[in-house]
Amino acid sequence: MTNQKTNDFKEIVRGRRSIKNYDPSVKISREEMEEILELAATAPSSVNMQPWRFLVIESPEGKAALAPLARFNQNQVETSAAMIAVFGDLQNFDKFEDIYGKAVEEGHMPQEVKENIHKSFSGYFETISREDMEDVVLVDGGLVSMQLMLAARAYGYDTNPIGGYEKDQIAEVFGLDKDRFVPVMLISIGKAADTGHTSVRLPVDQIAQWK
Amino acid sequence: MTNQKTNDFKEIVRGRRSIKNYDPSVKISREEMEEILELAATAPSSVNMQPWRFLVIESPEGKAALAPLARFNQNQVETSAAMIAVFGDLQNFDKFEDIYGKAVEEGHMPQEVKENIHKSFSGYFETISREDMEDVVLVDGGLVSMQLMLAARAYGYDTNPIGGYEKDQIAEVFGLDKDRFVPVMLISIGKAADTGHTSVRLPVDQIAQWK
Repeated sequence: MTNQKTNDFKEIVRGRRSIKNYDPSVKISREEMEEILELAATAPSSVNMQPWRFLVIESPEGKAALAPLARFNQNQVETSAAMIAVFGDLQNFDKFEDIYGKAVEEGHMPQEVKENIHKSFSGYFETISREDMEDVVLVDGGLVSMQLMLAARAYGYDTNPIGGYEKDQIAEVFGLDKDRFVPVMLISIGKAADTGHTSVRLPVDQIAQWK
Repeated sequence: MTNQKTNDFKEIVRGRRSIKNYDPSVKISREEMEEILELAATAPSSVNMQPWRFLVIESPEGKAALAPLARFNQNQVETSAAMIAVFGDLQNFDKFEDIYGKAVEEGHMPQEVKENIHKSFSGYFETISREDMEDVVLVDGGLVSMQLMLAARAYGYDTNPIGGYEKDQIAEVFGLDKDRFVPVMLISIGKAADTGHTSVRLPVDQIAQWK
């Protein structure tokens, strides 16, 4: 029942189950949660703009605010160490300088390359439709969420990705601009209190074609 | 340069770089590619409907058809072992019986639970808007794509996730119904011919808030 920390990739991937019951006495320290998020956020993203934003909802007040939005997932809200609300920031290009300026500063990229990237993409970010940018941040949000769930297991925790919640309300309830922050999913995280269920996967010949 | 197979989770995650140059002499066997896809597809998805569909484009004819759609990514098309086009199937509920029937058959779920899930979700799948279902398959497509990129590294290969391609044309070019299959991304995969670039990540305090 009690998952241990592990660095075994196949065990982390194949042993992952959606866990809905957690040991409510187990909290995750700020330091450990930051390590999990930092590891998750090594995921790739469109133009490396890292549009993912996380609310780590762990206080009694935070969970009380979340509960009415969480539909049939009350058990995860109640017993998890935290509920992580993942959003995509539609204004992610605002962080261009934070990201690419640091790349130059740390010697990963010449200043000229940075300026060329800015020139190449500033028009794209100015003209992309809201719908298309939503698609970008949802895909990037999926990428980082997967690494988050795997990173959690490396630290001995389990997760449950949740799509069924009040997506139209969650930004405002937590004081975020709902026109800017697009909900991706909720992820419960904590120490598993049961082993979860085995779930079936389609065989590869039903999901892949060779061309 | 030559990545070895590894099962070291942190090395797989932290060592991942977007690789755009591959050793063109290295192909990936059908068996190995199926193992990579099977491992990737252990990802979770909404209602476990696994909406991801993959075109593994590896033949000279397939790559020639893809090249005009791949914009500034010609090097990946030319040198990779394969280009994997990831799609989301909007009609994913069609596979309910394949998935949940097998779960019952294999003893993971009583028949009654399966019937209740079908009853609970068939209305949802009938009434969900195209836009909302697109959002679902894009997030699920992100989840599986991340595991695919990590699984590739476990097998000693590297990848490059690509969003800049002719998304409005790719389904039709490969004979898929474009009203049904939503493009998620292209992933080049092969044996790295260079070490890629280090890229910067935002510090956790710029992407996370505690509530």
